[in-house]
Amino acid sequence: MLKIGVVGGTGYTGVELLRLIALHPQAELACITSRSEKGLAVSDLFPNLRGHIDIAFSDPADAPLKDCNLVFFATPNGIAMQHAVELLDAGVKLVDLAADFRLKDEALWTDWYKDASRTGKHACPQLLEQAVYGLPEVNREQIKTAQLVANPGCYPTAVQLAFLPLIEAGIVDVSRLIADAKSGVSGAGRGANVGALLAESSESMKAYAVAGHRHLPEIKQGLQNAHGAEVGLTFVPHLTPMIRGIHATCYAELTSNSDLQSLFAERYKNEPFVDVLPAGAHPETRSVKGVNTCRIAVHQPQGANTVVILSVIDNLVKGAAGQAIHNMNLMCGLDETLGLNAVALMP
Amino acid sequence: MLKIGVVGGTGYTGVELLRLIALHPQAELACITSRSEKGLAVSDLFPNLRGHIDIAFSDPADAPLKDCNLVFFATPNGIAMQHAVELLDAGVKLVDLAADFRLKDEALWTDWYKDASRTGKHACPQLLEQAVYGLPEVNREQIKTAQLVANPGCYPTAVQLAFLPLIEAGIVDVSRLIADAKSGVSGAGRGANVGALLAESSESMKAYAVAGHRHLPEIKQGLQNAHGAEVGLTFVPHLTPMIRGIHATCYAELTSNSDLQSLFAERYKNEPFVDVLPAGAHPETRSVKGVNTCRIAVHQPQGANTVVILSVIDNLVKGAAGQAIHNMNLMCGLDETLGLNAVALMP
Amino acid sequence: MLKIGVVGGTGYTGVELLRLIALHPQAELACITSRSEKGLAVSDLFPNLRGHIDIAFSDPADAPLKDCNLVFFATPNGIAMQHAVELLDAGVKLVDLAADFRLKDEALWTDWYKDASRTGKHACPQLLEQAVYGLPEVNREQIKTAQLVANPGCYPTAVQLAFLPLIEAGIVDVSRLIADAKSGVSGAGRGANVGALLAESSESMKAYAVAGHRHLPEIKQGLQNAHGAEVGLTFVPHLTPMIRGIHATCYAELTSNSDLQSLFAERYKNEPFVDVLPAGAHPETRSVKGVNTCRIAVHQPQGANTVVILSVIDNLVKGAAGQAIHNMNLMCGLDETLGLNAVALMP
Amino acid sequence: MLKIGVVGGTGYTGVELLRLIALHPQAELACITSRSEKGLAVSDLFPNLRGHIDIAFSDPADAPLKDCNLVFFATPNGIAMQHAVELLDAGVKLVDLAADFRLKDEALWTDWYKDASRTGKHACPQLLEQAVYGLPEVNREQIKTAQLVANPGCYPTAVQLAFLPLIEAGIVDVSRLIADAKSGVSGAGRGANVGALLAESSESMKAYAVAGHRHLPEIKQGLQNAHGAEVGLTFVPHLTPMIRGIHATCYAELTSNSDLQSLFAERYKNEPFVDVLPAGAHPETRSVKGVNTCRIAVHQPQGANTVVILSVIDNLVKGAAGQAIHNMNLMCGLDETLGLNAVALMP
Repeated sequence: MLKIGVVGGTGYTGVELLRLIALHPQAELACITSRSEKGLAVSDLFPNLRGHIDIAFSDPADAPLKDCNLVFFATPNGIAMQHAVELLDAGVKLVDLAADFRLKDEALWTDWYKDASRTGKHACPQLLEQAVYGLPEVNREQIKTAQLVANPGCYPTAVQLAFLPLIEAGIVDVSRLIADAKSGVSGAGRGANVGALLAESSESMKAYAVAGHRHLPEIKQGLQNAHGAEVGLTFVPHLTPMIRGIHATCYAELTSNSDLQSLFAERYKNEPFVDVLPAGAHPETRSVKGVNTCRIAVHQPQGANTVVILSVIDNLVKGAAGQAIHNMNLMCGLDETLGLNAVALMP
Repeated sequence: MLKIGVVGGTGYTGVELLRLIALHPQAELACITSRSEKGLAVSDLFPNLRGHIDIAFSDPADAPLKDCNLVFFATPNGIAMQHAVELLDAGVKLVDLAADFRLKDEALWTDWYKDASRTGKHACPQLLEQAVYGLPEVNREQIKTAQLVANPGCYPTAVQLAFLPLIEAGIVDVSRLIADAKSGVSGAGRGANVGALLAESSESMKAYAVAGHRHLPEIKQGLQNAHGAEVGLTFVPHLTPMIRGIHATCYAELTSNSDLQSLFAERYKNEPFVDVLPAGAHPETRSVKGVNTCRIAVHQPQGANTVVILSVIDNLVKGAAGQAIHNMNLMCGLDETLGLNAVALMP
Repeated sequence: MLKIGVVGGTGYTGVELLRLIALHPQAELACITSRSEKGLAVSDLFPNLRGHIDIAFSDPADAPLKDCNLVFFATPNGIAMQHAVELLDAGVKLVDLAADFRLKDEALWTDWYKDASRTGKHACPQLLEQAVYGLPEVNREQIKTAQLVANPGCYPTAVQLAFLPLIEAGIVDVSRLIADAKSGVSGAGRGANVGALLAESSESMKAYAVAGHRHLPEIKQGLQNAHGAEVGLTFVPHLTPMIRGIHATCYAELTSNSDLQSLFAERYKNEPFVDVLPAGAHPETRSVKGVNTCRIAVHQPQGANTVVILSVIDNLVKGAAGQAIHNMNLMCGLDETLGLNAVALMP
Repeated sequence: MLKIGVVGGTGYTGVELLRLIALHPQAELACITSRSEKGLAVSDLFPNLRGHIDIAFSDPADAPLKDCNLVFFATPNGIAMQHAVELLDAGVKLVDLAADFRLKDEALWTDWYKDASRTGKHACPQLLEQAVYGLPEVNREQIKTAQLVANPGCYPTAVQLAFLPLIEAGIVDVSRLIADAKSGVSGAGRGANVGALLAESSESMKAYAVAGHRHLPEIKQGLQNAHGAEVGLTFVPHLTPMIRGIHATCYAELTSNSDLQSLFAERYKNEPFVDVLPAGAHPETRSVKGVNTCRIAVHQPQGANTVVILSVIDNLVKGAAGQAIHNMNLMCGLDETLGLNAVALMP
């Protein structure tokens, strides 16, 4: 039985992680820390966990994190990097669900995330190279031996899985990729902000951060790794009036013909958490509500050159906590699907 | 491994039942029948079941229901009663998720349900007495030996669990009970009707069937069994703009003082699926989304005589498919919580 | 053309008031004050007002409120009472949309609202008697000559209009009234609080403040005025997953028989903003979305003694800003329906 | 006072048209026809119209449509074309809110709409040329003198207004335009279909009709008229969990530099119903809920060549009934904004 620590865990990624740990047959929650909620029973904050999680939040200063086999950081950006060295030195495996270790290029990290650091600098840039980007469909083997995994962002998971087969096959114009992504509001987190109130965000749709969203460099990094050179990407996220779910609609220009359906089916045939739908299908985000699956459909409307890929995930599962558990399973030598076999709640 | 048959199963109760069967360690779906969908893969109708349920709907005429250990009827009212005798004679256990066997009094059934029968009469009134009303918190022992179980309605589950401790203790005026219940629209079923369209039922709240809802006689029957005599009940259901969940707010006048919190805690202390919340709490329906738990809180506002009980369930789980699985577990000698240990999805 | 001032106005009551003023043929917005937003164009905060309201928020210290014919306080509790004397002395008419002047009994105000005052005391108790409670269906004539009107709360409007015909007719047991009320989350205001996030409050239903809500004494005061003596009321508010709307389901025991439908029709036949529905009807909150109407239906289920009244309003219109405009029309000698003839948005 | 007839009117476009007619100072509803609902009071079907519309649905056979100044067809595709000749010959002006007269090319109509005709053929192809496409921002002068106006589709309104300034200026590659559009479910109509149930379509997002949607040829026709030659367009509509609103996110490649903000501001500076937002803005669909305005923002992310235009409308107002009233005003010589000055309901 793995002893698991969670740092943070008062947000939506955190409660989802706790739900998955509570149901995992080979993992048990040893401690969970929160400065703001220390002493509070976890199930008082999250009543769905009553009867499943019996411990309280600990003070970060006292928590026996070093005794854990693996620690998840379900914290805001900038926290994991302050504690990683000490825990890694103690032999603990780490999965950061925030963005401290996702970007390989320190300068790029500084461009997009310097506000997350009091000094404006990354706390341990020497770990950026060592950290493995935890997208199992790309890095499964490295994850298995990694001590430090950077869990991908929600949009990057949905968008990369949509584009990868095309880019790896070299059949699209990589200079003009477009990802139009729609996310439920849980993606904005559990912080109290006016824009995420039901009275503000339900019954409405809007784009945001069109000038530049932090997930843009992360997606580009992944696509460039696949392509082996620079790519051009326009990424427009939208706030959608629902709790969970990301629907990425991705557009690319074909440069040569191919059987797209077979290409996608082949690329993901051994992937337990990617489901390529039959030709002509339109995946719904609700078909993955609460589960770790990405469902994908590929279209070539009117036989023209523009290929349209539809990719849906649950932003809190395949886009966060579920993928983190998947990474944990891989890092700890377990069956990679353990604890992740739920069926989506529908309706 | 139990061989399970499902008759019907194209509605919301059906898909929820399939979800729970797919995850149950001791049950496997042997066949599922639907006249309208025969030949269609189940997972084509319900994409959340892709990778979990691999069979197609069978023609009811051909399905090997008699070879099953237990058959669930997830059909409209009036269907189970037409097939019950034949299957019971073949030694199959039955759970009807509709209302054919809930009322013990044939005349009462006729008053409220005659439209469900072409003849206007119950097809097998001789079974009404034998059928066990499947509310485990009341009838656990009878359910264990029953061959035919009438799974309770959704409102009746939430309302009875709220009132039972008070009525059993004999401390309320049973002539003036009020149950104000709010249900998500999945309670209206998966049939195409204008009133359940998102554009009609979201962003709105309304009462319905104030003159008399079919769950009224079922609730009264249960409360009268507990009281041993006639009770007076006003029951007002409301359509609430959400998919799942029932919130019953129940009102009764105290006739003698009592420690209400202890009364409820004691009544349900051994019940795996009833969670009595601490004094002062307000349960949310989302805290039971997807799970078989009923959460209850009891209040006595301003110390006056009116007691207010708040009771929440997921109408499709504790109010339908989950309770049916609970009954199956009991009828088949399994651990009663098997396959029902999920954690509610939150947010 | 009336010169109108608004104090506050950055919340939902405020923006709704601005919408109604923008459309009113005899009122123009002279100034609007907000300490936190001074200098900001109103339409930058509320984009629906682009092209309709061209002014910016002023500093409260500088705003020419004394030059206005009428000033609305769309502020939190405890603000209007600090400025009322000065403005009244200057001859300005005032409508407070908060609760500073709703309760006639200073001690009762202190019991429920003392937290709204730094001193724990009401700032001008001498005005409590002079202030007119602005429910036109009860106090129309006094409102016409009032200089200070206390605009009713949202729940109190829906609940009083439901109970008044019965209490005035003296045909119910006033010792045991029950009001089970359901409100959209805009009732919680535009403040950033976790409980009102879409991810927390959509797809869920819950009661709150069962032990005692601030609208309880206000409702009781109104019902007691109608009855001429003490009444007993249990009031349970619920948070409903929608933006706007209140549905009050009210229960009372009949003490003598009466033609309830005629009673209600007669009571409200001259009321422009109360619509008594035909017998058997179930009003939906969406039928009053954006308009100043209260729709009511009265039921006597199974002919028993319990009468059930269903009453729906838009909490931001008839429950706040619309009723405030209605009061303004009455106070200023205008046709009372002026600017309030909109049709509800449906769907 | 104009005498107005409405054919159909039992759907969402119909009730919205009735709402706008009820509030219009120069138009009165003379008759409304519906085969299925004849004899029913309009306000019994649509309770928001109680007190505003007092007539009942007439039998189409009897209705005095020829006595009207103008008749709206708020019917399914294929109906208006069967009655147009007769009414035009009688001197009545017509606005068809369906698609019978939108496409100029009869063959194109047949390709996309032949299912709407029993014969598979258009009933009056001779009128296709004469009919004016009712997008006032393009065809204002022709509309003023038209007897027959084809009211644009909802998606085509939002998408054309987004692309027109760029195409008219000749600064984008018209061979690779992309329109990713998100619509509320009222766009699917008031028909009872399972996919539009709240329990199916809320808490979910999906694309649909990626292979080809009927609005594609209509949008292309409009863009080609502006460009003077063929354009290439990929159009992907999405079903969004809200009642009203369309958000079109449109992508094009710049072929030369330009001050995009000025271009859009200039193009629409005299348009009463197009609001170009300041640079950097993100319009929300709720900012136009219930009103006839299209709000547009233009972005050039990271200064790259891809321009992103965000365009929001209320699909039932600017995308249907409001634009129809706008056309009526123009056709009948009224101030074009008459009856269309409402403020969006927010929140």
